[in-house]
Amino acid sequence: MSAAALNPDVLVALLHGPDRPGIVARVSGWIFERGGNILHADQHHDRSSGVFIQRIEWTPANPSAAAADADAFRAFANSIGMNARVSSSGARPRIAIFVSKFDHCFHDLALRWKSGDYACDIVAVVSNHRDLEVAARGYGLPFHHIPVTAATKDDAEAAQLALLQSLDVELVVLARYMQVLSESFLAQFGRPVINIHHSFLPAFAGGRPYHQAAARGVKLIGATAHYATAVLDDGPIIQQDVTRVTHRHSVDDMIRLGSDLEKIVLAHAVRWHLESRVLVYGNKTVVFD
Amino acid sequence: MSAAALNPDVLVALLHGPDRPGIVARVSGWIFERGGNILHADQHHDRSSGVFIQRIEWTPANPSAAAADADAFRAFANSIGMNARVSSSGARPRIAIFVSKFDHCFHDLALRWKSGDYACDIVAVVSNHRDLEVAARGYGLPFHHIPVTAATKDDAEAAQLALLQSLDVELVVLARYMQVLSESFLAQFGRPVINIHHSFLPAFAGGRPYHQAAARGVKLIGATAHYATAVLDDGPIIQQDVTRVTHRHSVDDMIRLGSDLEKIVLAHAVRWHLESRVLVYGNKTVVFD
Amino acid sequence: MSAAALNPDVLVALLHGPDRPGIVARVSGWIFERGGNILHADQHHDRSSGVFIQRIEWTPANPSAAAADADAFRAFANSIGMNARVSSSGARPRIAIFVSKFDHCFHDLALRWKSGDYACDIVAVVSNHRDLEVAARGYGLPFHHIPVTAATKDDAEAAQLALLQSLDVELVVLARYMQVLSESFLAQFGRPVINIHHSFLPAFAGGRPYHQAAARGVKLIGATAHYATAVLDDGPIIQQDVTRVTHRHSVDDMIRLGSDLEKIVLAHAVRWHLESRVLVYGNKTVVFD
Amino acid sequence: MSAAALNPDVLVALLHGPDRPGIVARVSGWIFERGGNILHADQHHDRSSGVFIQRIEWTPANPSAAAADADAFRAFANSIGMNARVSSSGARPRIAIFVSKFDHCFHDLALRWKSGDYACDIVAVVSNHRDLEVAARGYGLPFHHIPVTAATKDDAEAAQLALLQSLDVELVVLARYMQVLSESFLAQFGRPVINIHHSFLPAFAGGRPYHQAAARGVKLIGATAHYATAVLDDGPIIQQDVTRVTHRHSVDDMIRLGSDLEKIVLAHAVRWHLESRVLVYGNKTVVFD
Repeated sequence: MSAAALNPDVLVALLHGPDRPGIVARVSGWIFERGGNILHADQHHDRSSGVFIQRIEWTPANPSAAAADADAFRAFANSIGMNARVSSSGARPRIAIFVSKFDHCFHDLALRWKSGDYACDIVAVVSNHRDLEVAARGYGLPFHHIPVTAATKDDAEAAQLALLQSLDVELVVLARYMQVLSESFLAQFGRPVINIHHSFLPAFAGGRPYHQAAARGVKLIGATAHYATAVLDDGPIIQQDVTRVTHRHSVDDMIRLGSDLEKIVLAHAVRWHLESRVLVYGNKTVVFD
Repeated sequence: MSAAALNPDVLVALLHGPDRPGIVARVSGWIFERGGNILHADQHHDRSSGVFIQRIEWTPANPSAAAADADAFRAFANSIGMNARVSSSGARPRIAIFVSKFDHCFHDLALRWKSGDYACDIVAVVSNHRDLEVAARGYGLPFHHIPVTAATKDDAEAAQLALLQSLDVELVVLARYMQVLSESFLAQFGRPVINIHHSFLPAFAGGRPYHQAAARGVKLIGATAHYATAVLDDGPIIQQDVTRVTHRHSVDDMIRLGSDLEKIVLAHAVRWHLESRVLVYGNKTVVFD
Repeated sequence: MSAAALNPDVLVALLHGPDRPGIVARVSGWIFERGGNILHADQHHDRSSGVFIQRIEWTPANPSAAAADADAFRAFANSIGMNARVSSSGARPRIAIFVSKFDHCFHDLALRWKSGDYACDIVAVVSNHRDLEVAARGYGLPFHHIPVTAATKDDAEAAQLALLQSLDVELVVLARYMQVLSESFLAQFGRPVINIHHSFLPAFAGGRPYHQAAARGVKLIGATAHYATAVLDDGPIIQQDVTRVTHRHSVDDMIRLGSDLEKIVLAHAVRWHLESRVLVYGNKTVVFD
Repeated sequence: MSAAALNPDVLVALLHGPDRPGIVARVSGWIFERGGNILHADQHHDRSSGVFIQRIEWTPANPSAAAADADAFRAFANSIGMNARVSSSGARPRIAIFVSKFDHCFHDLALRWKSGDYACDIVAVVSNHRDLEVAARGYGLPFHHIPVTAATKDDAEAAQLALLQSLDVELVVLARYMQVLSESFLAQFGRPVINIHHSFLPAFAGGRPYHQAAARGVKLIGATAHYATAVLDDGPIIQQDVTRVTHRHSVDDMIRLGSDLEKIVLAHAVRWHLESRVLVYGNKTVVFD
């Protein structure tokens, strides 16, 4: 599943558009005619909406012409009515991690990145608190302290945006960042933001989800990684998982057990995003895992 | 875990009341002094509310005096400020199953009962349709057709109540019964009603939960067995489970996969109820499994 | 996932052979050129062995020519070095279920079949005991009692084989059949046999796996559906699942919990086989689910 | 579940011995009479072997006399034929972590310990390689490099033993330590050693379990935490878990997915051991979680 990560010469396309006969044949034919070799291809036909979605990985005939091939593929896809996003496995997206005080998701992401498991560059750790500054610098990551209060929220978001833009950040990961990003911030940033919410959404959206879960008496607690949108905890879901709890578990126990869920759910979502496995589609995702 | 089911001479008590030092010692001391032998004991101290909850199974010294022992235990429990429900493993609760047209939960319950897995008597199958009449009679179960329309709902519920009371039904299981029981029905019946809802409650309460789940793009679908209360899909949860879905699963696939979840979740809830393993407590349950 | 089951005009091919560039393009091109419409296609490149494997579903241009298209596709596949098995969704494989005394897997399969969930004809229930005769006839299924003892095993297998051949049985499902089929039987039958083993293979192969699991103190028990081969419990695995147990579970509890696992694992394996989703490959399977 | 961790004045006893009527009453009576307050009590009656096992947590009447109470409880337990281990929640066991080059389990344990999640002191990190030296020191942990070759194994074990004894280490955790500890080492150390094995034992004991799993074509891979004994990968199992794999997963993918399993399985096992929740019994464990 990690061919792209291992091979710098692989192109990965995610394409979608109106379904009609022959798309698979034309796409694979185009690649074959240019001497490419398809490594993986997975497609989905959404019957209810008539949409065709495909993820395809291939090695171009001439690695040095990969960028040209990517451009040519985009043009070809458009010519058959498809929207395409093409990335090269050699590219390393620039990402920023937003944190507050909880550190478990941050350490988890940083260690996976440090071990070479994530093909990306973490170019900034941004926090409204200083608690994780030493940890971030310990991993060799630049740390930016941007405090946020009700009064300064607009200014703080402006500072965050300026930072992201100056660093050309392509993905923001909210690793238990305890502030809600405004609709305006998301619109201006205009690039994906992945959030981890500590419940099985849509159950227990909003604040203190473990307390909500304990009050309702559920037998499973969950975590949900999703793209952030203007509506809180309502964006397209990338990954979810749950773990069993009983009456013996206090809210503190749920928080502890849940933190392991949060780490693994966020880790999968980030990995799939980095490997171009996630296509947003309506308010849902198709994940080619 | 099935000592009670195997041994006709076992008493099982569920007790709860204000927590204070010495309850465990006094309860076990009382049983020991009367020559009883404790087979299992499990207790829970709810710190936040100061409530003590215990389930205890024992063989009385003299099996023929089990009924007297049960009465004596209740009196003893009251004397130390506890509320106790005591049942004998020899007792076979009388239950009614309500169904509509879906048959998977019905067959599952009937087969478990027929194989001797459930220590109860199924004294009635009640339905607003005739679809499962032949199947019910095939298992040797009395079938009662009580049609329900918006206009006749009150009369239908009156007929259901009269039937349940005439049969001394102690538990109703709603095995995908597609009518909402009124608050008045539940109050007049006054005994437990277990429902299976085809979602991970509190997500997707109400109608067509698999359609809701598909629309929201969740990555797991679930089922929830709970005691029915006046508020739809809001009663104390007994058991929940989930299974993974992807973009490849249509709503029909979810319905099919979900039906296996519904069967097993409801089967566990009914079994735990029959074995006196479930104590309702606020709007939550303690399940001693 | 059930397009084939719903649509009588769908062709499904499973093909495999030496991997080389252009196969996807050629296969999809062939279908497109003949006016077919690809509904699903999924492929796998096994890097270590250089094998290409594909499952592809399509509607032929002219439903009445589906059989001819299937033949033509096989010939085409051979021409590009691929081995292909093509089936029409209109075909209903003829299957036989072998049982002994345990009835849970049998009821589960029969109910799924009766509800229309399985696109097959169950043409025989074969047993070495008479225990399930009434149940089989209750589902309208022909029951054949073929007793087996150590002394009569060869004759019994000969009788089973004669029956299977006279009925043109295409798949045998061993639904907790408690006799080991001989190597000779499997060779002479020459068609797939699916078995359910009540452990997480390769742990606890052979007899009394729940007793073995209890003795070893494992924390999860499992079930495995696999194709039967000459080596006991060693054939290609189709599906596995597990459930958690604790010290509180006796062997009897494990047997009860395990029976639910066995049902669902076997049900999935049979469904996937019937939908042409399973390709055996070495001693492993590729399951396109 | 973490009362002991939160409250320095709690005593926890694990006791076991021949089952007979009245033990629960006598144990709880003893605590009650001395003014103690039972917080949790859980017991297990092993019917097949006639053994009674109990874990009980209580606050003694006088915290300053906790040590005396622990001694008195041990004597009392012996007087009723029970073997008892009593620990105070204020005690912090001294543990050593053995590592080689894989760092995921090490970081996971170190971060949990650093966050205060484990009530223990990590007094040594021991490795046959220098790879994790910087990481260990980064957490403020003393690192000891003791190289091991076939020729020097006896000397290396002697050095390890001397170190453990000089530090009064009470528990060794093998966090993917890639050397087999000899029977002699285990006997001389004489205290618990927890190992994490990267398979669902007893499947795939020994070396390269993910390669074994890939070769066998299993659909789930697992991890097992167990106490190390003289027979490799055969000691009492504390915890196990599994995750699903498909034909798409290479051995490298299994290694990556499995590393998350290993972390969480080992983390649970260590926590349960530290909280006196694990009683070894025959070659099995009772885990009071």
